[in-house]
Amino acid sequence: MTSSSDLEQIESRIVSLVKDFAFLHADDSVASSCRPIADMVAKQAVTSSEGGKRLRALLTLDSFRAFASEDVRERDFDALLDLACAVEVFQTGALVHDDIIDDSDLRRGKPSAHRAFSTGTHSEAIGHGLGIMLGDMLATASVDIADKAAPKLTHGSDVVAALLNMHREVEVGQVLDLAVELNPLDDPDELVEASLNVFRWKTASYTTIAPLEFGMLAAGIGKDDARKQALAVGLPLGLAFQLADDLLDVVGSSSNTGKPVGGDIREGKRTVLLADAINAANDTQRRELIDMWEADSRSETQVKRAIELFEQTGAIERSRGRIADLWNESKTAIETLSLSEYHESLLIEACSRFVPSIHVQTRA
Amino acid sequence: MTSSSDLEQIESRIVSLVKDFAFLHADDSVASSCRPIADMVAKQAVTSSEGGKRLRALLTLDSFRAFASEDVRERDFDALLDLACAVEVFQTGALVHDDIIDDSDLRRGKPSAHRAFSTGTHSEAIGHGLGIMLGDMLATASVDIADKAAPKLTHGSDVVAALLNMHREVEVGQVLDLAVELNPLDDPDELVEASLNVFRWKTASYTTIAPLEFGMLAAGIGKDDARKQALAVGLPLGLAFQLADDLLDVVGSSSNTGKPVGGDIREGKRTVLLADAINAANDTQRRELIDMWEADSRSETQVKRAIELFEQTGAIERSRGRIADLWNESKTAIETLSLSEYHESLLIEACSRFVPSIHVQTRA
Repeated sequence: MTSSSDLEQIESRIVSLVKDFAFLHADDSVASSCRPIADMVAKQAVTSSEGGKRLRALLTLDSFRAFASEDVRERDFDALLDLACAVEVFQTGALVHDDIIDDSDLRRGKPSAHRAFSTGTHSEAIGHGLGIMLGDMLATASVDIADKAAPKLTHGSDVVAALLNMHREVEVGQVLDLAVELNPLDDPDELVEASLNVFRWKTASYTTIAPLEFGMLAAGIGKDDARKQALAVGLPLGLAFQLADDLLDVVGSSSNTGKPVGGDIREGKRTVLLADAINAANDTQRRELIDMWEADSRSETQVKRAIELFEQTGAIERSRGRIADLWNESKTAIETLSLSEYHESLLIEACSRFVPSIHVQTRA
Repeated sequence: MTSSSDLEQIESRIVSLVKDFAFLHADDSVASSCRPIADMVAKQAVTSSEGGKRLRALLTLDSFRAFASEDVRERDFDALLDLACAVEVFQTGALVHDDIIDDSDLRRGKPSAHRAFSTGTHSEAIGHGLGIMLGDMLATASVDIADKAAPKLTHGSDVVAALLNMHREVEVGQVLDLAVELNPLDDPDELVEASLNVFRWKTASYTTIAPLEFGMLAAGIGKDDARKQALAVGLPLGLAFQLADDLLDVVGSSSNTGKPVGGDIREGKRTVLLADAINAANDTQRRELIDMWEADSRSETQVKRAIELFEQTGAIERSRGRIADLWNESKTAIETLSLSEYHESLLIEACSRFVPSIHVQTRA
């Protein structure tokens, strides 16, 4: 398990794959007057691909290592590395579209793709259009990369089918995420249910379930077993990850996330944290929260006040508890996989990267 | 060659495939509060899929018929039908994104998807976000459909690779199309070159080249030959098709296209027609055209005046000439393919659907 060297390999391979697969190929003929914009998009494809934590690629590699025999591990590593990068390329594309949908200016501390394009073309409309296209291209590149790697992997065609299913699941998740924004706030239990459901589709799908599944399939596990096991381990893990991410948004700092603290609150996102707060609030606090979220926007003072209310109502503690329970569920599922002690601890360590806050929790 | 029965089969198969592949599967669990929006998106996926002329699916089938031996034709027809539908599903998704980029209210005479979503959710922002997602989903479904059909086809993995390349080419084309909008209007030769280049990527790629290529691959032709032949026949044909489509926008009627006449002019699109008009115009006419196109919008009177200028400068006649030349180039390429007389005329008839206006031209 050499994550730092894994990280270096992933990082350089992503750049090279994005250059090869996304957008123009070397022999493509393009009118010279359109070249500057074409080059701008190609450059942004690389810029948008930089700076991720690569958690999904790392999990793909470690899942493969935990389940594959030694000879398969060595023989198929390069193809698997490409598959791991395909998940990251997919994410980059999904985030480009996500930033358009949320009208976000920043991503990973840099201008979001559509903003960069708007600046570069001096046109909001064209910048926006180019952003939609960059997202489309990276989605295509993700499948293309996996499709080229698949013939060199065990169960290669099942891997491609699983990747396409992953694309679909995240798209479903985005739709559900938008649907939640239309739900009323007066039924917090329903909001918790709906938010966790969104997490399953929008986050767990490609963050934990699919990477685990890819590693298992390529290691030789049949598709039904791989799916079942990936869900058992990856679904609670992915939910814990998103809860931890939402928590970081209110207790973290801007330098950790590349986004300003309280961003979800500022956007008025309907999160599990909010639902837990509304649920545990007294009448005055509940009214205060609902009024803030029903308004068109929230001031900096209100953002701070909301975080205070999340704290006072115990919603933050509740989220920590949820994360700990889900992480235990995931660990228990790993323990039933009959892995060797070495491979079991390898997989547990790989999965624990998704819940860094858990160390605080277990020490508490 | 039974196009009307082909059309019926394509139409009913598309609906069934979109229901099966796009968005939710039967056993997917979704929070009840999000169901109404999920159902709205699923319904719109079908609505957006209706009403196409299915030219691309028909060409896929006819290309296969022209090149495949009789036993392959019968054995693989069902899988090929799915592949043909995958091209149509791709197009539907691309048009959903195209309508967002162009901010179009109408598509095939009905509200465009993002408009329908905006109305349905009473929110421009959410409608817009759901539109981006519907386009993403249909793109994923297109690959998924082809990927499931591929193992039942000759050269199935080459077919999937060609389909992914088609996705990429159209995405490149959309970027170039946006780039052309930023070009100055004072070099009409450059504008003609750039516009034809956009047609190659944005239109010919998936309208004629890929459908011909899919049919050839599935008929057993090797990938290099299939690519070369599909380009030789499909590239001029696709360019002719787009020129004819642009022509229809100024000489057609709203009932033919489902869009108001002069829509491209109203939007200020930089077309080959415009470039030809600027090229052949006298100084006064040239200034008039450039001023109209450099303005933020064009009135109905200006749209009529522009069409008049297209006529007076001979740009419309020039386009008819271009279309005739390109169609001849495509036919000549077909004639070098050493098909039997029957299969050659089958393929020529299939290709002639893309240039319906040519009958007028050849009679003239």
